[in-house]
Amino acid sequence: MEITDIGGVLCNGIKEGKYGLGLVRVRGSIAGVFTQNKIRAAPVIVCEENIRDGVVEGVIVNSGNANAYTGEQGMRDAREMCRIAANLLGCEERRVAVASTGVIGRKLDMEWIRKKAPEVYSGLGNSVENAERFGRAIVTTDRFVKKAYSEKARIAAVAKGAGMIAPNMATMLCFAFTSAKFDSGELYDMLRRAADKTFNRLTVDGDTSTNDTVLLISTGKERVERDVFEEELCSVFYSIAKQMARDGEGATKVFEVRVDGARNDEDANLIARAVASSLLVKTAIFGCDPNWGRIIAAAGYSGADVDERITLSLSDGRDEVFLIDSGRPLGNEERARVLMEKAEELVIRLRLEKGNGKGFAIGCDLTYDYVKLNAEYTT
Amino acid sequence: MEITDIGGVLCNGIKEGKYGLGLVRVRGSIAGVFTQNKIRAAPVIVCEENIRDGVVEGVIVNSGNANAYTGEQGMRDAREMCRIAANLLGCEERRVAVASTGVIGRKLDMEWIRKKAPEVYSGLGNSVENAERFGRAIVTTDRFVKKAYSEKARIAAVAKGAGMIAPNMATMLCFAFTSAKFDSGELYDMLRRAADKTFNRLTVDGDTSTNDTVLLISTGKERVERDVFEEELCSVFYSIAKQMARDGEGATKVFEVRVDGARNDEDANLIARAVASSLLVKTAIFGCDPNWGRIIAAAGYSGADVDERITLSLSDGRDEVFLIDSGRPLGNEERARVLMEKAEELVIRLRLEKGNGKGFAIGCDLTYDYVKLNAEYTT
Repeated sequence: MEITDIGGVLCNGIKEGKYGLGLVRVRGSIAGVFTQNKIRAAPVIVCEENIRDGVVEGVIVNSGNANAYTGEQGMRDAREMCRIAANLLGCEERRVAVASTGVIGRKLDMEWIRKKAPEVYSGLGNSVENAERFGRAIVTTDRFVKKAYSEKARIAAVAKGAGMIAPNMATMLCFAFTSAKFDSGELYDMLRRAADKTFNRLTVDGDTSTNDTVLLISTGKERVERDVFEEELCSVFYSIAKQMARDGEGATKVFEVRVDGARNDEDANLIARAVASSLLVKTAIFGCDPNWGRIIAAAGYSGADVDERITLSLSDGRDEVFLIDSGRPLGNEERARVLMEKAEELVIRLRLEKGNGKGFAIGCDLTYDYVKLNAEYTT
Repeated sequence: MEITDIGGVLCNGIKEGKYGLGLVRVRGSIAGVFTQNKIRAAPVIVCEENIRDGVVEGVIVNSGNANAYTGEQGMRDAREMCRIAANLLGCEERRVAVASTGVIGRKLDMEWIRKKAPEVYSGLGNSVENAERFGRAIVTTDRFVKKAYSEKARIAAVAKGAGMIAPNMATMLCFAFTSAKFDSGELYDMLRRAADKTFNRLTVDGDTSTNDTVLLISTGKERVERDVFEEELCSVFYSIAKQMARDGEGATKVFEVRVDGARNDEDANLIARAVASSLLVKTAIFGCDPNWGRIIAAAGYSGADVDERITLSLSDGRDEVFLIDSGRPLGNEERARVLMEKAEELVIRLRLEKGNGKGFAIGCDLTYDYVKLNAEYTT
């Protein structure tokens, strides 16, 4: 199921070298969550302004240039992008949502956008090819376009975002469409909670790029139970978050850290995030090294209430190898190493004996290719 | 000036493969600061207990095994290390400070320590070779032993610690000796402040290994002004912190992030640490890429009060290239790239327009070799 399978969603996009432009025509209610970075890109500021009424008629997105740290000129350019889309779609400028991703601190090439927008507009449609062209238009260093859907709740989403190997990496853009009828306030509540349970486990609160944007748009054509919808929205976002981790620059393995028995949920999440962010844990996973000392040390400096009574296991989803039982090392390193070598996805499970707090985080390994990509990708 | 140039300090050490044992005879007052990790190694707990009276007669250190996450057995082993040293030195067990560094979660090889300690003891002396043997005995993955001194304040220090490329890396041990007369309370106050201004800029508060230990021992033989002493102690620790950054696993460049004009010092330090810890900044420095967008983005997610009015420069200590002037990109990337290619040490300077807050942090670049070292160093 593609975004164009949501009735009323028409889209198109083009990509020329590093630069892309995508356009969506869709009438409905809208909600968005944006980066918590203090340096916010112009399109983030403009988009948030424009969706304040909760009504949308179009979305315009460019890739290759983030239009971030571009001052007043950047604000004018972001507004002009909306105006260009509005003129083509025949709606008010403030009914257009806008997003950008790419390098920071460069003036947008508005000439290119002005020239290409009519071309993109003229190809708007609801075919699979349209959805694919839109997806390709919004990606940057991504190895693939991220997509997920729920037939049950009539949701389809498309996203870009790679390099999520650490919290402070490349921009995430996610556009989710649904025909399920909700007003923008309802959409916002569900979006915020779902993003917190999924993307924020990958990106860690506050540690976001200048441009991160997640939009949820409803065409309001059918009725879906709110509980069902929220659960399905979480599943869709969870799938996309995992795809982003898998596409972490140079990543070979995705892992989840699941913590329970912490003093409270906050502590459990602190531990999960500290372990998932540890460079030593990430490199150990790349090296298929069941170095649980690094995991324990990360739990210890997470800021959470931690003592040595920890039970720790590694799992590939089928088999689970316990490395520590309530503080007692079990000597199962060899079995764990074999499991790590075969697994593409790993679950690191930590059980504390402090309370009932639960939490989790998503991460990926740190590889040579990560360094290569980021050292050689020059400004 | 070596630690053995402090009158009354005798030392020795041996290294066999991955394992080392060092011993110091020194009578005097002592103060220590230790890891803030919640999982504390047995030697940290025992050392803190033993130095509570502020009096010391000996120090015993082993490398290759951290004696961390080793439960009751670990506590017994750490105490036995003190007892072994006490028996050899002819003092009470509680007059011995102890430290360990190495892998986590393995039982100490006490048999080896029992056998080797008399051999180390019999070679105690105050020659340069003695100081060198002690230094070699305490290092693990270090490429070199860290040393610094102040003639003026009669301080000499020796330390180990590499892989400080991120806050959560390998253990830091530092042993500083002085003949300047101070009681343990005075030593503690100065030690705490000096460590906060130096090591904690490298290791970030709380993000420490299970074994980090810094000891300051005074033989009390001469008088040095307190202000002079504290300033010199800071210089000695600063030198050692820089050496640790230079020895960051696989690091090719050391950099400092200096921030001023922040709302307050706390904000300035948050920004400095976020920039120095950013994987994208670290890889950009490795690639000699003046990618100031990554620096600005890190400042933005640091949690500090930040807006676009930032002035940013890169310097090699002699030349300074400005990249942004109060929010306006200057287009000096090519000059900055040339400067980065030639420099072994870099200063990234950020000036905000929020207030008078100042702060700094020390970091090093992230390279292929970092990944290689940490992926291949198996448990």
